[in-house]
Amino acid sequence: MKKDIDHLMEAAGLDALFVLGAAQHNPFMTYFTGGAHVSSAYLIKKRGEEPFLYHNAMEREEAAKSGLECHDFNETDPLKLLKQAGGDVTRGRALQWETIFRRHGIQGRVGLYGELEIGPAFTALKLLDEALPDVEFVGETETEAVLLKARSTKDSPEIDHIRHIGRITTEVVGEVADYLTHCAVREETLINADGEPVTIGAIRKRINLALAAKGAENPEGTIFAQGRDAGIPHSVGQDDQAVMLGKTIVFDIYPCEAGGGYFYDFTRTWSLGYATDEALQLYEDVRDVYEKIMASLRPEIPCRDLQILTCELFEQKGHPTILNTPATQEGYVHSLAHGLGLAVHEAPHFQYAESNKDLLLPGSVVTIEPGLYYPSRGMGARIENPVWVRPDGKMETVVEYPLDFVLPMHP
Amino acid sequence: MKKDIDHLMEAAGLDALFVLGAAQHNPFMTYFTGGAHVSSAYLIKKRGEEPFLYHNAMEREEAAKSGLECHDFNETDPLKLLKQAGGDVTRGRALQWETIFRRHGIQGRVGLYGELEIGPAFTALKLLDEALPDVEFVGETETEAVLLKARSTKDSPEIDHIRHIGRITTEVVGEVADYLTHCAVREETLINADGEPVTIGAIRKRINLALAAKGAENPEGTIFAQGRDAGIPHSVGQDDQAVMLGKTIVFDIYPCEAGGGYFYDFTRTWSLGYATDEALQLYEDVRDVYEKIMASLRPEIPCRDLQILTCELFEQKGHPTILNTPATQEGYVHSLAHGLGLAVHEAPHFQYAESNKDLLLPGSVVTIEPGLYYPSRGMGARIENPVWVRPDGKMETVVEYPLDFVLPMHP
Repeated sequence: MKKDIDHLMEAAGLDALFVLGAAQHNPFMTYFTGGAHVSSAYLIKKRGEEPFLYHNAMEREEAAKSGLECHDFNETDPLKLLKQAGGDVTRGRALQWETIFRRHGIQGRVGLYGELEIGPAFTALKLLDEALPDVEFVGETETEAVLLKARSTKDSPEIDHIRHIGRITTEVVGEVADYLTHCAVREETLINADGEPVTIGAIRKRINLALAAKGAENPEGTIFAQGRDAGIPHSVGQDDQAVMLGKTIVFDIYPCEAGGGYFYDFTRTWSLGYATDEALQLYEDVRDVYEKIMASLRPEIPCRDLQILTCELFEQKGHPTILNTPATQEGYVHSLAHGLGLAVHEAPHFQYAESNKDLLLPGSVVTIEPGLYYPSRGMGARIENPVWVRPDGKMETVVEYPLDFVLPMHP
Repeated sequence: MKKDIDHLMEAAGLDALFVLGAAQHNPFMTYFTGGAHVSSAYLIKKRGEEPFLYHNAMEREEAAKSGLECHDFNETDPLKLLKQAGGDVTRGRALQWETIFRRHGIQGRVGLYGELEIGPAFTALKLLDEALPDVEFVGETETEAVLLKARSTKDSPEIDHIRHIGRITTEVVGEVADYLTHCAVREETLINADGEPVTIGAIRKRINLALAAKGAENPEGTIFAQGRDAGIPHSVGQDDQAVMLGKTIVFDIYPCEAGGGYFYDFTRTWSLGYATDEALQLYEDVRDVYEKIMASLRPEIPCRDLQILTCELFEQKGHPTILNTPATQEGYVHSLAHGLGLAVHEAPHFQYAESNKDLLLPGSVVTIEPGLYYPSRGMGARIENPVWVRPDGKMETVVEYPLDFVLPMHP
């Protein structure tokens, strides 16, 4: 949580954090700036002090909305610095950073954060590194970074954001279910009001429309994968394919608040009208493992243990998994879960590698998502629900939604 | 253009390009992968050879859609590498890159590209740099990068993409104009069907809905700024403010194709019902400069000259500009234009700094956007149209749309 940052910095031996890039769709910056629409900014936080923001002069009113101490780039006289750099924009940026670091007395070990273009950033940071012998830049790993650790547990306002986008997400899922089950059917194919087959592309458009109407964005798209595509975990599905009865449909939706805030991540597997016995069995196996895992969640449990348990449960049912068949592309082939927040995938992590020391902690929000994949048999199934580990140690599914697999048609 | 890449690499003395990050909302990767939905990938292009892609095993079908030569991460045995790195994910990634570089014989000067988290990337690249003494990483500047130069002129399929999103954009602008001018009015305020004031927030929602319905995304939001906010170039406007008659409204919209493709960028300034004499004069000054600049465009003209000309034209009309009043926040305070493509802002650039050597070239797509800003007088105005420099040297406004300032109300 945000309140842990100074403590985490101390534990990591960091004297300051340096966060770069835009405030939108850049989780580390958004973590500090909230919804302020700032396209180019640098944020610095010294240990034990409040963070401050340098921003473009044109964006001063937006920057102020962040509630942070704000400084205009012009305070660094960027044109003079650009001239001093012989017109080299990257060198000019390094000089600007140097000016800011000296002005605010930044020294010691500085953690680097933010999503931006690696080319000029790599060069400018190397120049800055050389210019400031009393600063050591620390590009922390995905698992150890102070701000990832802070973000890996959520405080109450963050839970409100996740619940808000969760409600939007499940409402949209409900509307899609409602639309599909009220379509007419011709030769096992869903038919729209114009008498044409309902395509996956049309469903995807409907999803985007419904999300936009509710104030959400869908920057990473939607998985709506049927039959064989449902058997390939990250196939997004084929837009020109018609939606059919009796096929497994994996519907995985991961929108965020408009402007690039908190994400939700939610999956249901459906079979419209009826299901084959083989698909029913597949779904029951997934659902059973899902329920056993939900019952096994508790604070302080190593995430790695949950991944191993999932593999063991699936193997007991006769499915190959990546635990004992590492290269398998059938059976259970991915991680059980991941943290959810300003990024759709964040800490804690659930790989079974011994190096993974992540724990489920009070404040964690994780997406529990076991699945089984058999492209060769034309089917796949996954269930995914975000779960919040509450401060009192109880587990709470962030937004409830039915686990029904077969959706009866009632046109 | 893409066909220029080898030639540009030769001129820049680059032996290879190394592009990192997701394929969505990451222009340098999208430039090669098109619409393929790949969340984590490395692309390498050696000079004179076709590029190839390393991707997550789970995303093999999506990666294949790029049409590129594809390699699965598993070919590098990432678990063995992670073990060799003592479980340090960043060090494991550096070893994986080293494996790929050695396997494909990558040597010499390598240009770095792609948007990603700077922390782990900076560390992993420093490790790779140390491990490969025969490789020199080049983080090119914003103005000199080979791929930015390639992207700064568009080939015919790219123009088709920009025109497609341009048509969507202007259709949405037309729908918004239509909605606003058909609203009822009470005490100078627009009123919706429920008898409530029409807020800017409601208009923004309507814009997002209309964009989603047409298959576009709006990842960077929309400027819909009225009165004093219109006088601040990058104020996005206030959601709780009611839309009024007789105020300048700057409506700047910059959506992209769904999934993170090509952008459009378009601005109109409106005054609903009527305009004050002062606002009319302001708009006429902007429109006159816009038309003079449009008439001055020709292939090979330095972009810097166009920015200086714009300042001179505004100063002749008595407005302060950043040419002779560098710190001004009133008058003409930004650049005339920017390139438009997979990023909403890209080369060519129009700063008047002497270091700016960018030219308007056949294939350039630039947004011509002169504007005037007077927050103290509660108004601002901007006109923006993307223009394509055709291969025959003629200028073509990508999508035509009326320049009307006063929109008569007809409820």
